[in-house]
Amino acid sequence: MIARTVGLVIRIEAVLLLLPAVVGLLYGEHETLYFLLTAALALGLSLLLTWKKPVNTVFYARDGLLIVAFSWIAMSVLGALPFYLSGEIPSFVDSFFETVSGFTTTGSSILTDVESLSRGMLFWRSFTHWIGGMGILVFALAVLPAAKGEGRAMHIMRAEMPGPSIDKLVPKMRSTALILYAVYLVMTIIEIVLLLLGGMDLFDSVVNSFGTAGTGGFSVRAESIGAYHSSYAEWVIGIFMLLFGINFNIYYLILLGKFKSALKSQELRWYLVIIALATGLIAFNVAHLFDSLDDTIRAAFFQVSSIITTTGYASLNYDVWPTFSKMVLILLTALGACAGSTGGGLKVSRLVMLVKSIGQEIRAMIHPRAVKNIKFEGRPVSKMTLDEVMVFFAAYVLLLLGSMLVVALDGFDLVSTSTAVLTCVGNVGPGLGMVGPAGNFSEFSILSKLVLSFDMLAGRLEIFPMFILFAPRTWKRN
Amino acid sequence: MIARTVGLVIRIEAVLLLLPAVVGLLYGEHETLYFLLTAALALGLSLLLTWKKPVNTVFYARDGLLIVAFSWIAMSVLGALPFYLSGEIPSFVDSFFETVSGFTTTGSSILTDVESLSRGMLFWRSFTHWIGGMGILVFALAVLPAAKGEGRAMHIMRAEMPGPSIDKLVPKMRSTALILYAVYLVMTIIEIVLLLLGGMDLFDSVVNSFGTAGTGGFSVRAESIGAYHSSYAEWVIGIFMLLFGINFNIYYLILLGKFKSALKSQELRWYLVIIALATGLIAFNVAHLFDSLDDTIRAAFFQVSSIITTTGYASLNYDVWPTFSKMVLILLTALGACAGSTGGGLKVSRLVMLVKSIGQEIRAMIHPRAVKNIKFEGRPVSKMTLDEVMVFFAAYVLLLLGSMLVVALDGFDLVSTSTAVLTCVGNVGPGLGMVGPAGNFSEFSILSKLVLSFDMLAGRLEIFPMFILFAPRTWKRN
Repeated sequence: MIARTVGLVIRIEAVLLLLPAVVGLLYGEHETLYFLLTAALALGLSLLLTWKKPVNTVFYARDGLLIVAFSWIAMSVLGALPFYLSGEIPSFVDSFFETVSGFTTTGSSILTDVESLSRGMLFWRSFTHWIGGMGILVFALAVLPAAKGEGRAMHIMRAEMPGPSIDKLVPKMRSTALILYAVYLVMTIIEIVLLLLGGMDLFDSVVNSFGTAGTGGFSVRAESIGAYHSSYAEWVIGIFMLLFGINFNIYYLILLGKFKSALKSQELRWYLVIIALATGLIAFNVAHLFDSLDDTIRAAFFQVSSIITTTGYASLNYDVWPTFSKMVLILLTALGACAGSTGGGLKVSRLVMLVKSIGQEIRAMIHPRAVKNIKFEGRPVSKMTLDEVMVFFAAYVLLLLGSMLVVALDGFDLVSTSTAVLTCVGNVGPGLGMVGPAGNFSEFSILSKLVLSFDMLAGRLEIFPMFILFAPRTWKRN
Repeated sequence: MIARTVGLVIRIEAVLLLLPAVVGLLYGEHETLYFLLTAALALGLSLLLTWKKPVNTVFYARDGLLIVAFSWIAMSVLGALPFYLSGEIPSFVDSFFETVSGFTTTGSSILTDVESLSRGMLFWRSFTHWIGGMGILVFALAVLPAAKGEGRAMHIMRAEMPGPSIDKLVPKMRSTALILYAVYLVMTIIEIVLLLLGGMDLFDSVVNSFGTAGTGGFSVRAESIGAYHSSYAEWVIGIFMLLFGINFNIYYLILLGKFKSALKSQELRWYLVIIALATGLIAFNVAHLFDSLDDTIRAAFFQVSSIITTTGYASLNYDVWPTFSKMVLILLTALGACAGSTGGGLKVSRLVMLVKSIGQEIRAMIHPRAVKNIKFEGRPVSKMTLDEVMVFFAAYVLLLLGSMLVVALDGFDLVSTSTAVLTCVGNVGPGLGMVGPAGNFSEFSILSKLVLSFDMLAGRLEIFPMFILFAPRTWKRN
C-alpha cells in the first residue's frame, strides 16, 4: 500500500521532469538527455512499485506519515539524478542536498557558481520549489482519481500541509486540493506577468516566481534578486513573498466574497504586525547605511518578507548589517510564516498559541480558580491541539540543538554552524557568516550535509514524519 | 502581608551583612563601615515594613510568588549598597548587576579587576552565592518560628526552590527547610576543609566553597580556579560542583540509609550520564591541546561540571576550544542541573519529561489507541505537571529570544550577545567571546545590564514570579 502510493508519486515526478526537458530542448542543451533518462528511470521504478496490488487495504495514521516521508525521500533521490548524471553537480550528496533544498523550499545551495549551470538544470532547480511548495501529494490528490477513502486523503494532507491544523475548505479533499492548486497557479502566473512588465526576461521571471511561490529562494544569479538592480522587481517579489506566506484558506474565503471573515484571521493580523514591526525596527537600525528613505525601507521590507516567509531571497548582503538587525532576522528565521501557506518554520499560529498558553499559566497563578480556556481564531483551542503545539515546539528546539551539535563537528564558527541548522530546519535558505546571503553550503562535510538534508525534510514535513522513521515501533508488526 | 514578609527577609539580610563586616574588621579594612551602614539601613527599612500588622491574612498562591519576587529584588538592591557606597563599584547599576548575579548564583561579573577589591567586599560577593543557592526564604522558614499556615510556607518554598516539583521531605515544611540547610552547611564545610588540606589559604577556601555550594561561580582571582594551578583543587571543586548540582532529596535519602531508592533516581542517572558523555566528547575533541591524558580529562570534566551545574568557574579559557566543544558547553548552559539542587537552568528532569513527551507523541502517531501515560521516577506524571513543564519550556525559550533582541541593540557580536543572555537566564556566569571565561559584562549598556539582571532573577526564580510582576491582572483588586 505504502509502496503503491510512493510509486504513484514517482510517476508524477517522471511527468514533471519533462518540463525542464522541454526547456532544455528550447535552449538546445545536450543536458536534456539526463532529464529524459531520469524520467524513464522514475517511470520504470514506479511501475515496479505499483506492480503488486496491495494485499492490506487497512490504513493507519502511521501509514500516512510513512507515505509522506518515503515519497519525499524518493522524490529527492530521483530529482537529484539529472544534476549528478550530467556532472553539473559532481557529488551525489551535493546533488541530493540541492534537490532536498529545492523540494523542501529551503533554498540553501551548495553551488559556488550558480550562473554556470545549464538553463534546463536551473529551471528544474527552481521548479522543485514550485512542486514542493504546495506539496506533491496534495498535487496527486488534485490530479488523480479520487481515492476510495476520504480518511486516507485527510491523513496524507495533514502530514504534508504545513501548520498545526488543516481545514477542509469543501467536503471533498480532492476539491480542496484542486482549489489550493488553482489559487497557487494563478498567483504564480500573475507574478510572472508583473515581473515581465518590469522588464525582466521570461526565463528569470518564471524561475524567480517559482522560487517566490514555493517560498523557496533558489536564485539563478549569484547576487540573488539584488543582481537585477531593480527596485520594481524587489517590490513585486517582496510583496508576493508576503502573499505566499499567508494561509491559502484566506484566499479561498476572499474568492467566496467573505472578505470580513478573511480579514478577521488572528494569525494574519499577527503576521502582518510582526512584518511591519520587524521592517520598522530594521529600517531604523540600518538607516545610516542607505542614501534615501525609500532604499532603507525597501531593503528592510524585502529582507523581512523573504526571511519570515522562509523564502530566502536577498536584495543585498545583510551579513554586514548591525547585530540588532541580524538578531531580528534570526528570530524571523525560527518563526516562519502562516500555517496553510507554502512557508516553513514554526508558524505564526503556533507562536500565538504558545504566547497565549504562557499568558494562561500566569492568569492561573494569579487566580487559581479561573477558567482555563484559550481562544484562537474566535474558537476555543482544544487541549489536544495545545498539547500538539507544545510537543511540536519541544521537538523543534531539540532537533535544532541536536543538529547544531553534529554540524559543529566540522569546526566552522558558531554563527555559521548554528544559523546553517536554523535556516535548514526553518526551510529559509541563507544563514549568516559562511552560509550568509553571499555564501553557500559547499564546505560542510558529507555528514553535515546529510544531517542538514534531514533537517530540511523534517522542517518541511513538520518533524514527526521524519522522526517516525527512527522509532523502532514503526517497524514492528501490529 | 507581602510587605511584612519582605521586611522579615530584609531583617535577615541585615544580620547576614554582619559576617562580611567581621571579615573586614579582621583584615582591618575601613570599608567595613559600609556593611554596618547598610545593615542599619536594612534594619530600619525592615522595621518600617513590619510596623503595621497585616489586616488581610488570607493568602493566595499569587502572594507567594509576589513575596519571592519582591524579596529578591529588595535583597539585591540592599546588597548592592556596600559595593556602591564604598565606591568599589562606582556605578549603582553595576553594583546591582553584581549583587543580582551573586544572589541568583549566576556569577557573571562586571568587574574588570576583581583582585583589587577589599577582602570584605570579596567575602560578601561570594557569600551572596551561598545565601542565594538554597534561597533566603527557605532560610527564613528554617530559622524563624513556624508560620501559622503550612500552605503559605509551601507556596513560598515552591516559588523559591528550583525544579518542576518540590517534595516535602517530612510533614512539616520548617523541618524540611532545616534539613536542607543542614545538608548544605555540612557539605560546604567539608569542601572548605578539603581545600585547606590541599594548601589553599583559608579565605580562598571559604569563598571558593561558597561559590561551589551555591553553584555561583564568582571567583576572587582573575583567572578563576585556573589561578591556583592546582590539579587537586580542580578535582575537589569539580566534584563538589557536581555534588551540589544533585537534588538534595537524594542526600536526605542517603542520610536515612535508603541508598537503593536514592540511586534509583532517574534524574540522577540522566545527569551523571550527560556529564560522562559531555566530558568524553570534549576530552576527545580537545585532546590535541593537552600534553597528558590526565590534563585533558581534568580540563574537560571541570568545565562540564562547572557549566551543567550552572556554577561557572573556569580552570582555563575554553573560549579558544574548537567549535564542537563550545557547542557542547552552550547546550549544557541551557540545560542546567537537577531539580531541587542549588543549580539553575532548564533542569535535567524537565529535559527528560520533554523527551518522553516527544516519544509519547510519536507512539501515539503509530498506535493512536495506545494509552497515553508518561512515567518519571517510577510514578506516572500528571497531565498538569507535563503542561507546566511545556509552558515553562516555552516561556524559557521566549525569554531567551526576547532578551537577545534587546541586548543585540548594544551592537556586540552575535556570539557574545546570545551567550550573555543564555548564561544569565541559566544562572551560569560566563558565556563566550566578550563574556567568555576571560571576559566580563562591564561593556554592556545600562539597558542590557538591567535586562540581564531581570533574566538572572527570572532564571533563578523559575521565570513566573518575575513575569507576574508585569501582568496587569496582578495589580487589580480581587
